[in-house]
Parts: sequence; C-alpha cells; structure tokens
Amino acid sequence: MPRWKPDARQRLVVAALGLFAEQGYDETTVAQIAERAQLTRSTFFRHFADKREILTAGQNALCRLLVEGIEAAPAGATPLTAVASGLERASGGMTAFNRSVGPLLRSAVEANEELRSREAMKSAGLAAAIVDALGSRGVAEPAARVAAELGVLAFRLGYARWVDPARDEDPGELAEHALAAFDELRAAAADLR
Amino acid sequence: MPRWKPDARQRLVVAALGLFAEQGYDETTVAQIAERAQLTRSTFFRHFADKREILTAGQNALCRLLVEGIEAAPAGATPLTAVASGLERASGGMTAFNRSVGPLLRSAVEANEELRSREAMKSAGLAAAIVDALGSRGVAEPAARVAAELGVLAFRLGYARWVDPARDEDPGELAEHALAAFDELRAAAADLR
Repeated sequence: MPRWKPDARQRLVVAALGLFAEQGYDETTVAQIAERAQLTRSTFFRHFADKREILTAGQNALCRLLVEGIEAAPAGATPLTAVASGLERASGGMTAFNRSVGPLLRSAVEANEELRSREAMKSAGLAAAIVDALGSRGVAEPAARVAAELGVLAFRLGYARWVDPARDEDPGELAEHALAAFDELRAAAADLR
Repeated sequence: MPRWKPDARQRLVVAALGLFAEQGYDETTVAQIAERAQLTRSTFFRHFADKREILTAGQNALCRLLVEGIEAAPAGATPLTAVASGLERASGGMTAFNRSVGPLLRSAVEANEELRSREAMKSAGLAAAIVDALGSRGVAEPAARVAAELGVLAFRLGYARWVDPARDEDPGELAEHALAAFDELRAAAADLR
C-alpha cells in the first residue's frame, strides 16, 4: 500500500483508471467513478470537467514543463542538450503518485483501443511541442523533428522503466531513467547505418 | 477532375471523406455516405464492414507491404537499407486514387479529434510493425526503434509532399519522395548533437 494518504483528486484518478481497465473507458460514467472513490459527483466536478480530463490534465502539465525545460537550456546548447533539459524538467513534475498509478494506467490503455489512440496522440502532441520549442531556438526541421521523436521515445521508455513494479524497492528518479534512455537512443541514432 | 473513372469503392471513399471533413466522423452515418455516393447501403456493405473500415483498410495493406519490403531486403542489408526497401514497397501500393484523396483526408483529419488520434495510432502501428520486422532480421532495440521512427516520419513526410496540390502538374512517384525524406532524416539523425 502507498504510504501517502490519497486526497480526493488522487482517489478519483485511481477509481477512474481502475474502472477504465476493468470495463473500458466508454462504458465508465462519472457517477461510477465518484461512487468507487466514495465521493459525490459534485466533488468529481470540482476536480475535473469530465472523465476525459482525468487523462488529459497530466498531459498538459507535462507538455508545459517539457517546453519550459527546453527554453531554459543555455543559449549555446545543442538541440539534444536542450531536449535533455526538457526531459529533466518534465520528469520533475512526476510524483510518487504518478508512479503508483503507472501499472493501472498501463492496464487501462492495453485494454482499450480509444485509450491507445489517446496515448498515441499524446506522444504526437509532445513531439509537436518539442519541435516548436526547438524551432524557437533556431533548430529547423528535420533535425528538430528527429530530436523530438528521440525525446518522446526516451520519456516513454524511461517512464516504463520507472513504473516497473520490479523496481518497487528502489525506483530511483524518473529523470535518471529518461536521461539514460535518451543517451541510449542518441547513441543508436548516431550508429545507425 | 481526375481522369480515372471512380468505381463504387472509390466513390464511397470520396463520399465518406467529404462528409467526415464537413460534418465530422462521429456524425456521419453509412446511410449518408451511400446517399452521397449515389449507391445503396447494401453496396456500401459489400465493400466495407462499417465506416471505420474506410479508414483502416488502406492502413492494413500499407503495413503488410512495409513488412514485406523489409523482409525482402538482402540478408546483409543494414537496418536503414531494410527500412528503405520497406518504404519503397509500401509506396508502390499507393495509387493515383490515393493521391487524389490526399487533400480530402487531410481536411477530415484536421477537422476531427478522433481522426487525429486514429492517424497517430496508425503511425504507432506502422512503427511497431517495422520494429518487429527488423527484430526478425536480428536488429535489436533501441536501434530498431529509432530506425522505425525515422521510417514512419519519412513515409508521412514523403506522402505529404506527394499529395501537395502544388505538385499536380508533376507529382512524381511517392517512393521518390519517401526515400528522399528518409535520406534527409538519416542525415539529420547522424548529425544531431
């Protein structure tokens, strides 16, 4: 059991992801989510506009942090160093709670085609945000596009390693995993023939 | 106007994409698609199981060709050469009809979030198929993953250039555009710092 005491928002997220995994996203109603979280529908609506927002709220924050990190990189930083700075900043926004719901989110996504397509669109949205942020630093396509894809892959790979239950004893920091994955992907890209 | 005479299947695709672009995917019914194509509902169902299949039928064929092309590359081919072989084979499956509906498909996708997420999932599906096909050739992650992402980006970029109405006079072959885009992305990946 997690040692933090879940607040209402976290209870709603856990209840929603559990229901999405068990019975599908489409079939789950706000009333069911509130009931499982032992909260009222009006409490739900104090935290989220609809069930969709349970999945998108974190995405928007992640995107913003990633862009801020890229902007914050020193003026002379290379594209890959700027992306690494974005990965580090975005990773810092993920908490022990995010890690704890990782396996539940994964089950929900695997069980449901709509959630899989949302995940795919989330990745596409992150890549587009990185391309824009690199563009503002003067990095043109296609270099910006390739750097963005490597950055998104690194975040996804690092996140998958971080939330792996096999690491429950010592999960480490998401930033370490994401940056290690980024280094592996950079090396693979440089060596590709 | 296109010089080919559209058959029933093509008329259904054009009617469906037009309706998706104008009024959205969710709001469009099979009856409306058949009516616009001046065909009956039973003709629709002779060609497609449902309106979703209008979007997925081409995707499955594309994926199959891509994998076949990768498998057909010589035993000693590098990962990128194998992916180029897949791009070439997949491009050969796209006809003048595919080119002619390109702008309509683009409008439909831009107008509709569900179609955007389907497009994103389509890219993810192509990338996964390439990773598997490279895996069968002994190319491990993360090299296979990076090569796959470059391949999918190249196909998308090449396709966008090929269907651009500015090229109506002389569109060239999709394979040329996809392979040129692949070379640009390879060079960008090799130069990234």
